[in-house]
Amino acid sequence: MHTLYATMGSGNCYKVQLLMRQLDIPFRVINIDVLKGETQSPEYLAVNPNGKVPYLVLPDGQGLGESDAMLLHLAEGSHLMPTDPMERTRVFEWLFWEQSSHEPHISPARFWIAIMPEGRDERADQIAVWHERGNKALRMMNEHLLQNDFLVGNRYTVADIGLYGYTHVADEGEFPLSDYMGICKWMDRVRSMPRHMPMMEIATAVAA
Amino acid sequence: MHTLYATMGSGNCYKVQLLMRQLDIPFRVINIDVLKGETQSPEYLAVNPNGKVPYLVLPDGQGLGESDAMLLHLAEGSHLMPTDPMERTRVFEWLFWEQSSHEPHISPARFWIAIMPEGRDERADQIAVWHERGNKALRMMNEHLLQNDFLVGNRYTVADIGLYGYTHVADEGEFPLSDYMGICKWMDRVRSMPRHMPMMEIATAVAA
Repeated sequence: MHTLYATMGSGNCYKVQLLMRQLDIPFRVINIDVLKGETQSPEYLAVNPNGKVPYLVLPDGQGLGESDAMLLHLAEGSHLMPTDPMERTRVFEWLFWEQSSHEPHISPARFWIAIMPEGRDERADQIAVWHERGNKALRMMNEHLLQNDFLVGNRYTVADIGLYGYTHVADEGEFPLSDYMGICKWMDRVRSMPRHMPMMEIATAVAA
Repeated sequence: MHTLYATMGSGNCYKVQLLMRQLDIPFRVINIDVLKGETQSPEYLAVNPNGKVPYLVLPDGQGLGESDAMLLHLAEGSHLMPTDPMERTRVFEWLFWEQSSHEPHISPARFWIAIMPEGRDERADQIAVWHERGNKALRMMNEHLLQNDFLVGNRYTVADIGLYGYTHVADEGEFPLSDYMGICKWMDRVRSMPRHMPMMEIATAVAA
């Protein structure tokens, strides 16, 4: 069985859980509370020296970091990973783009607005930058999704799971999601996929 | 022929050029000067709406962003991309790790210290954070490289090219590279690979 060290409410943790659920891969979750500093505890650092979540322990005991490496590892050979070479390249492009141009702005804005609002005022300038850059990313995604039902190959793939993680909670960071019609309709399509489960439900269902 | 829009001295641009050179893939380079604002010019935004470099135009005219998606696209099927599933996963893990835990700290510290030093003083606090986090990343890499000749599968792969890009110029950002013996010996091994070429030489050779 796979073991995922994860934090509830983290888009990076959620996307790995969602993929395993949709591929019917058995897994258990060990909750790590970032807010309580548990990612830096000696016990956790002994498991994952990088001190980050998610962290996946494979059935053979090997540990794997980086949520998108997990997605690619788990999806390989399934219907959620394209076999066409250029479609595979586009999956890589979207996943790297998410980590370089999307998540670094949307995730911290959401964190300091919705999860740790007591730290918001002192970061007003930084939040303004995150909003500008995050909205630029959302505009790019929206442009693509106004013309395509899904990110790659016009069908649901692991790229959609990767991007859905933080996009669908961007409104919690005061990104005006409802202004992005392409994204809104895409999110509806993602939510209609077999075995889809919302972020907080999946966390509770698996931990139970 | 492939066309790469690139900026001289950028680790992300260099790694794509180095891979194409080592795989003997013909390419031309169009220089885009970030410091002159050329990534935001209307002409460049018409090519790459994301306004970043590198940007690769494939022989069929399709454009591709994200340096690591380029590496994976170009290396697939070559001796620089493993075929073993778990080794492939480790390549993904290192490339995503570089973009999330390494490059975001090492690259900006180098930029404000070596390339735009006039902006250094007003960023002293931020540079201290980048140094702390960048050194944490270099320590992790060093640990691995004290025990392994290369990052994945004990032979030179596209993961080494991906990580070499910014690691080998980290001293320009005042990271104490010579303290990391594992990294130093690995850099020597990378430099000894067939058709290796230093960053500034490759930029000049290709543009010529």
